[in-house]
Amino acid sequence: MLKVGIVGGTGYTGLELIRLVALHPQAELQVITSRSEAGSRVADLFPSLRGVVEIEFSDVSVAVLSQCDLVFFATPNGVAMSMVPELLANGVKVIDLAADFRLKSADVWAEWYGLPHACPQLLKKAVYGLPELHREKIAVANLVANPGCYPTSITLGLAPLLAHKIINCEDIIADAKSGVSGAGRKASVDHLMCETSESFKAYGVQGHRHHPEISQSLKMLANNRAVGLTFVPHLVPMIRGIHSTIYATSKVDRVDLQGLFEEYYRGEHFVDVLPQGSHPATRDIKNSNMCKLAVHQLPGTNRIVILSVIDNLVKGAAGQAIQNMNIMFDLDEAAGLSSVASVP
Amino acid sequence: MLKVGIVGGTGYTGLELIRLVALHPQAELQVITSRSEAGSRVADLFPSLRGVVEIEFSDVSVAVLSQCDLVFFATPNGVAMSMVPELLANGVKVIDLAADFRLKSADVWAEWYGLPHACPQLLKKAVYGLPELHREKIAVANLVANPGCYPTSITLGLAPLLAHKIINCEDIIADAKSGVSGAGRKASVDHLMCETSESFKAYGVQGHRHHPEISQSLKMLANNRAVGLTFVPHLVPMIRGIHSTIYATSKVDRVDLQGLFEEYYRGEHFVDVLPQGSHPATRDIKNSNMCKLAVHQLPGTNRIVILSVIDNLVKGAAGQAIQNMNIMFDLDEAAGLSSVASVP
Amino acid sequence: MLKVGIVGGTGYTGLELIRLVALHPQAELQVITSRSEAGSRVADLFPSLRGVVEIEFSDVSVAVLSQCDLVFFATPNGVAMSMVPELLANGVKVIDLAADFRLKSADVWAEWYGLPHACPQLLKKAVYGLPELHREKIAVANLVANPGCYPTSITLGLAPLLAHKIINCEDIIADAKSGVSGAGRKASVDHLMCETSESFKAYGVQGHRHHPEISQSLKMLANNRAVGLTFVPHLVPMIRGIHSTIYATSKVDRVDLQGLFEEYYRGEHFVDVLPQGSHPATRDIKNSNMCKLAVHQLPGTNRIVILSVIDNLVKGAAGQAIQNMNIMFDLDEAAGLSSVASVP
Amino acid sequence: MLKVGIVGGTGYTGLELIRLVALHPQAELQVITSRSEAGSRVADLFPSLRGVVEIEFSDVSVAVLSQCDLVFFATPNGVAMSMVPELLANGVKVIDLAADFRLKSADVWAEWYGLPHACPQLLKKAVYGLPELHREKIAVANLVANPGCYPTSITLGLAPLLAHKIINCEDIIADAKSGVSGAGRKASVDHLMCETSESFKAYGVQGHRHHPEISQSLKMLANNRAVGLTFVPHLVPMIRGIHSTIYATSKVDRVDLQGLFEEYYRGEHFVDVLPQGSHPATRDIKNSNMCKLAVHQLPGTNRIVILSVIDNLVKGAAGQAIQNMNIMFDLDEAAGLSSVASVP
Repeated sequence: MLKVGIVGGTGYTGLELIRLVALHPQAELQVITSRSEAGSRVADLFPSLRGVVEIEFSDVSVAVLSQCDLVFFATPNGVAMSMVPELLANGVKVIDLAADFRLKSADVWAEWYGLPHACPQLLKKAVYGLPELHREKIAVANLVANPGCYPTSITLGLAPLLAHKIINCEDIIADAKSGVSGAGRKASVDHLMCETSESFKAYGVQGHRHHPEISQSLKMLANNRAVGLTFVPHLVPMIRGIHSTIYATSKVDRVDLQGLFEEYYRGEHFVDVLPQGSHPATRDIKNSNMCKLAVHQLPGTNRIVILSVIDNLVKGAAGQAIQNMNIMFDLDEAAGLSSVASVP
Repeated sequence: MLKVGIVGGTGYTGLELIRLVALHPQAELQVITSRSEAGSRVADLFPSLRGVVEIEFSDVSVAVLSQCDLVFFATPNGVAMSMVPELLANGVKVIDLAADFRLKSADVWAEWYGLPHACPQLLKKAVYGLPELHREKIAVANLVANPGCYPTSITLGLAPLLAHKIINCEDIIADAKSGVSGAGRKASVDHLMCETSESFKAYGVQGHRHHPEISQSLKMLANNRAVGLTFVPHLVPMIRGIHSTIYATSKVDRVDLQGLFEEYYRGEHFVDVLPQGSHPATRDIKNSNMCKLAVHQLPGTNRIVILSVIDNLVKGAAGQAIQNMNIMFDLDEAAGLSSVASVP
Repeated sequence: MLKVGIVGGTGYTGLELIRLVALHPQAELQVITSRSEAGSRVADLFPSLRGVVEIEFSDVSVAVLSQCDLVFFATPNGVAMSMVPELLANGVKVIDLAADFRLKSADVWAEWYGLPHACPQLLKKAVYGLPELHREKIAVANLVANPGCYPTSITLGLAPLLAHKIINCEDIIADAKSGVSGAGRKASVDHLMCETSESFKAYGVQGHRHHPEISQSLKMLANNRAVGLTFVPHLVPMIRGIHSTIYATSKVDRVDLQGLFEEYYRGEHFVDVLPQGSHPATRDIKNSNMCKLAVHQLPGTNRIVILSVIDNLVKGAAGQAIQNMNIMFDLDEAAGLSSVASVP
Repeated sequence: MLKVGIVGGTGYTGLELIRLVALHPQAELQVITSRSEAGSRVADLFPSLRGVVEIEFSDVSVAVLSQCDLVFFATPNGVAMSMVPELLANGVKVIDLAADFRLKSADVWAEWYGLPHACPQLLKKAVYGLPELHREKIAVANLVANPGCYPTSITLGLAPLLAHKIINCEDIIADAKSGVSGAGRKASVDHLMCETSESFKAYGVQGHRHHPEISQSLKMLANNRAVGLTFVPHLVPMIRGIHSTIYATSKVDRVDLQGLFEEYYRGEHFVDVLPQGSHPATRDIKNSNMCKLAVHQLPGTNRIVILSVIDNLVKGAAGQAIQNMNIMFDLDEAAGLSSVASVP
């Protein structure tokens, strides 16, 4: 059994990780830390885990964490980078679910996250954990930067088009919509039920931290050509799910987009290209690690519209982290991720 | 125009009061205070009020408030009692939407609210502002204690039965369900969208501050006979609305409950006795000052079930406060309260 | 008092119209028809209207409707066109809330609505009832085509830019999101609570009936230049509200978009241009006739993003119809439309 | 592998059954019937099942169903009773998720379900499938009547008290609240998103079909003493979950209710007695087969309040059916039911 540790287990990403590890046939939760909850039972904070998880939150200790084979960070941005070097030195593999190792440039990171990076030398070494694009590198990585939720849904939606040079790179729009769990589990007026239910709005139009991450991914797919991306995130009055509506313009005539998408993702466990003309709904991937995609070419135009849905806490966070773990430890990539969206 | 002040305008009750005063044909918002928001425009905090309210939040000042004819307190429990004596002394009438003046006993108050009462001498003088029961006293009051939301819905549901001695007083159950806005607008993990949506639960089974308030009201209706009340509040995944399901046992045979309810509330603007066999839905009173009631006698038993719905922020708070204001200042009782529930 | 009739009063648009007419100081509901509900009281079908509306649904009769000054059609597409000519001939003014008179071309209408138009000669005569653009024509019209909900929000969002020739007309994207009430009040599996709640999806990517209506409006604004519009509607798990996120590219340098929008809508009652950098939320216009707009120019690019929110049942349907009525009968344009969004 | 058939796979109960069978390590979906959908792929109707279920709906055929080891009926009431005798005669075991075999009296059945029972001789033979109470009988049954959702939550909440003769049997109140999925997946105005969201109401106060089923269960537990039950169901604006608040009066002094509940359910996989003073939330059992219970004795009174939550589609329907299947075929009772509620 793989010995797994989780740093920061009191947020929604941490909770989902605990649940997935608990159900995983080859991994075992060894230690879970929380400064604020140290000493209390995990199942007391999260009653849904009664009978499933018996351990307590413990204080953060590199020594204790170093007894694990793998440590997940489900912490606020900026925490992982202060502990990762020591863990790696102790031979522990790390998957960071925060943003600390997602960007290749320390300068860009500092600009968007507001503090200098603590270990810029690791940025190059860290592998961006989007398995459908970087499976081989993940397999041999010691440090994986688990992608953000928006970036996962948008990158998977655009990858076939960029890889095959179908679209104009300088003119991409991603209109993305997220459930409220993306805002995390912290006391806040803005995300109260009474502030978010029965309402819809955009946010961060002038700039969002996922923008440079998405741009970096798209640029890599585009062989380093410049990518012009407009990214507008929105808040949906629901708990889970991300729906990205992506607009691009085709620069080639008469290409079979449906076939191209199906071919690109053939054999992938967790990407499902829907039949022509489909409209994926977020509920059909809720609680599952699936990304469902539909690609539309609008008749009589060069406009391409891609619809991409994931569960932000699963394929957009904890599920993808488990998928990365499976790859890093040479397990079946789908182990522990068999859950089917429960509809309704 | 009546000059109105509001102390504590940043919560949901305060916001609803602002909205109702803004629409009132004979009242004008003179001053609204908030320690945290002093100096900022009301409409900046609440964009729904742009173009409706032009003033700014100001700091709390008894001198400024004393220029009003009436001051509403929409503050946390314990605030009003420290300022009310001075305002009354200055000739200002007061309606407190918190609990400071609802209980007649300073000891019971101290027990449930955890601090000694600052002006126990005013408890007797304060009039409990449930207009359907205490209209005459409200008309001449200088200090009105606006009832709690649960107490309003439960008391209105039971009043005809207690007044007519139909039911056993020692055996009343009120199973009440409230939307999340009852928990207020304050940073809290427990009332995040992701914690309350798509879930239902009871709370406070072992004791809730509205219990003594309801008991006091019922006892008054029962001519001071002892009342045995079981009260269990629940949290409903919706924003507004209270639904109380009230269980009592009849001690008289063959009484026409439907007729009795209709007669009791005949002429009341804001209590609507539904036709026999009805099931009121909270949406049908949303945003309105109505209480809708249905009374059911279960066939072949002495069991009576009363269903009572109100909007917790209107008839359960700000709307009832306006109704009290109208009575205190001899205006049309329904002035400014004509809004019809907007369905859907 | 204006004598008003409503044809088709059992849907959500009809219900909202009834509510607004009931609250209107200068209009009175004379007759309301419904084939299915004829003979039953309006307030029995809609308990929220008890005490507000006393009349019954009656069968459809041109003779009876001809006693009104104005008849609203809140019927499925294709109904109004069969009755309007006779009503107009009888001197009754008509506002159609369906799509029968929105398009200028009978051929385009037939293509999108699947049947030939019954009175194509009226299409030219009908005035498109978007008051902010066509106020003068509405004032003298006998037949007003009340705009669709998506077209209202998108046209208002783009009007200042098209009128001032700021943007490229051939490259406009409207990513629009609507609450479920847009789908109407009819038995359907697709719009059950369990099918729509906690989920988000696009629909009609390959074509939606509002597309030609929006294009027609934009083209008019663009002085008949060709307009290339991509329109993707989405379904939001909430009851009311439309949020349109509109993407355009600027063809002029250094224009003060904020000032331009504020100037364009100066003096408008029902369009509120928010301060620079804002993100309007649909809840802030719920139950009100307001359209709130924010315009963003993305730094370092020629990308313009407009955010436009309305309540689909008010400014997107019944409220705008009342606004048109007010203009047609020379009443205060805002009469009966003073309601403020009730937040939360 | 157990060969399993499902009759009626297009409702929510059927869908949940498909999902659970698909994940079951020892069962395999052999055939699934639907008159309306025969010939179409299951995964086309339910996109959440793409890649999980490959078969098509087939027409109803006893011959085909007779090749199964077990057939589930997820049909409307009255369907199973017309086919079950033949299936049993062919050696197929049956679990009926509808109400056809839940009541022991054909007369009572006919009274509540409005038609004569087709095979009253089977009513005695059918075993009521509440495993925690009737495990031994289920183990040897050929025909299991899977309990209703309300009856499951209420019976489990009262069983320890009735079995130990703690409470007065003639005075029990069950105030139950259900998510909207209990109303099923059928075209209906009443259960549209816009009719049920943001609202709360009671229904069926004068009588509900689950009443005789609950009474029958309670009476059995009470050794055939008469049971006086008031049962009021309510509709909660959420998809899944039932919360029953049960009121009883104790007739014994000083009994340790907490210990009694814990002892009664010791060793049960799917009943979790929460610590003293708890308030179970439905989200903590969503998508899982758990029933969570809390028992409260109100201080200074003989009032007992039990809070009982289940997922109506799992422990209240499909999950309990799988649990029964496991018992009937001597599998691990928890096989295929390991899923943990996914919070949030």
